Amino acid sequence: MQATSFTENLPRRVVVREMGLRDGLQSVATIVPTAAKIEWIRAAYEAGQREIEVGSFVPPKLLPQLADTAEVLAFAQTLPGLRATVLVPNLKGAQRAMDADAEMMLLPLSASHAHSLANLRKAPDDVVAEIGHIRAERDACGARTRIEVGISTAFGCTLQGPVDPEEVVRLVQAVLEAGVDAVSLADTVGYADPAMVSRLFERVLRVAGERLVCGHFHDTRGLGLANVFAALQLGIARFDACTAGIGGCPHAPGASGNVATEDLTYMLHSMGIETGLDFDRLLALRERVAQWLAGEPTHGTIWKTGLPRTMKEVAHA
Amino acid sequence: MQATSFTENLPRRVVVREMGLRDGLQSVATIVPTAAKIEWIRAAYEAGQREIEVGSFVPPKLLPQLADTAEVLAFAQTLPGLRATVLVPNLKGAQRAMDADAEMMLLPLSASHAHSLANLRKAPDDVVAEIGHIRAERDACGARTRIEVGISTAFGCTLQGPVDPEEVVRLVQAVLEAGVDAVSLADTVGYADPAMVSRLFERVLRVAGERLVCGHFHDTRGLGLANVFAALQLGIARFDACTAGIGGCPHAPGASGNVATEDLTYMLHSMGIETGLDFDRLLALRERVAQWLAGEPTHGTIWKTGLPRTMKEVAHA
Repeated sequence: MQATSFTENLPRRVVVREMGLRDGLQSVATIVPTAAKIEWIRAAYEAGQREIEVGSFVPPKLLPQLADTAEVLAFAQTLPGLRATVLVPNLKGAQRAMDADAEMMLLPLSASHAHSLANLRKAPDDVVAEIGHIRAERDACGARTRIEVGISTAFGCTLQGPVDPEEVVRLVQAVLEAGVDAVSLADTVGYADPAMVSRLFERVLRVAGERLVCGHFHDTRGLGLANVFAALQLGIARFDACTAGIGGCPHAPGASGNVATEDLTYMLHSMGIETGLDFDRLLALRERVAQWLAGEPTHGTIWKTGLPRTMKEVAHA
Repeated sequence: MQATSFTENLPRRVVVREMGLRDGLQSVATIVPTAAKIEWIRAAYEAGQREIEVGSFVPPKLLPQLADTAEVLAFAQTLPGLRATVLVPNLKGAQRAMDADAEMMLLPLSASHAHSLANLRKAPDDVVAEIGHIRAERDACGARTRIEVGISTAFGCTLQGPVDPEEVVRLVQAVLEAGVDAVSLADTVGYADPAMVSRLFERVLRVAGERLVCGHFHDTRGLGLANVFAALQLGIARFDACTAGIGGCPHAPGASGNVATEDLTYMLHSMGIETGLDFDRLLALRERVAQWLAGEPTHGTIWKTGLPRTMKEVAHA
């Protein structure tokens, strides 16, 4: 059927970036053994995933679940064409990422002052300054590691309440001026609705253009996929997701559940958008992840109902 | 914040039409007593609901859960300003609705030939002919009862598989020519995605204009609210929903779960769209409905997580 004004900018291909090993595992108590993480990454790779956040370079004391990030990253780097990313909270973490020759590091910058203090013990502008130091350090050492800043709590915050969209735009401008390669917008606590997403992404696109590379939505209140659709309409072509819909933020009470990788992939395939992903393999991986996390809450819908009869034949789009 | 091209047609006010007493109860085994149904309608009315489908005029043998529809309708008609609707499958049911002076009757017409045969034991064109007889009967008896046709399985069918959008458009044209007052589009089995919704609603709007009055989405695969958003973008201002996300179709295997009234209301309020509904009262009603249906599956998200801190103050928008 022909495109309407509401579908004409939908991307033809979308990257589903797997966050389960970082955003997911950081928010569950269970410590998944390194061998299982490696099995997870191998299975995700075999299902077609080519962008995976494998962990965080934070002190193991804070997040023992991710203490093996260096080892997990080293394995991921053996898989051809896999872009493994790591989260880093500061210059020290960034140095570890660059030393490990990570292809990309993701820096969280809270648009909420209160969340920024709780999460990084720094005000947002101090985080911007640190990001400038990281860029300078990269220039000095000649590392290839790309820098993406994820603007967290971009749609509101459980600690502070409202977040002014002007502040989001200001911080995006500031980090672009500080020399980052890419920015993304995150609804860390599941407060966004699709009209908010349309408006904020459109504003940030005017500032960042193609350097706005990703949307990160939690499905806490059931609007995750509606929010993805709103961003897709603006041509956004990369979304974070977690296998089995796990995820959250230790410093954002009440936040839980990223958009599930399987559900997002189903929606994209149904819309005829390519992902390079094998749906059946994603479902098989979901089952294993749920086993590793036995007793922890998991989420998602499509694994319970199966694909529509109308799209079984395009499941591998 | 200013409207974008993706938000400029969003309606300012939306009617959430309650389907729980019909689409919901017809698909659960539990028979809810008439007194509880009356309590449900009263509580929904007190929460601000002004359009409620109270039951079906079908043989009690087929749907014993709805055998008391006449009594329930009579109660609903005592509430000032409440538009009580009933589902009718054929001329006989329509005559009962008109005899009872129902304000509106909803006739299902399957765009899927296989579902039409399973549900009404008639081919779609035979249902169109019956609808013509119903219109003639209304003209003859001078009843006020408005006729809405809900095009079911408009996005695909669990029995037949794909449904051609051309067939949906053809049937809409046919029933408008047969003299119905309004049409709605239903994703009876949860196969729609938001791009499909954009495209099909836009096409049907070109044919039906303001007589396309409602979207009916099942949340079987988690896309219910994304689909509502896509229809909202086209200015659609009425959506069917079921308290606690119950619902299904006895003749569409695998169909389950309308969009939950509470979740839909949350999304609309978050977007600043008025509904006239009191969110807290809807949640209280949800709890009672879940008690009446103890042991039956219920759905929905917002009742588990609560409203975002950012919108507590606009919960009664």
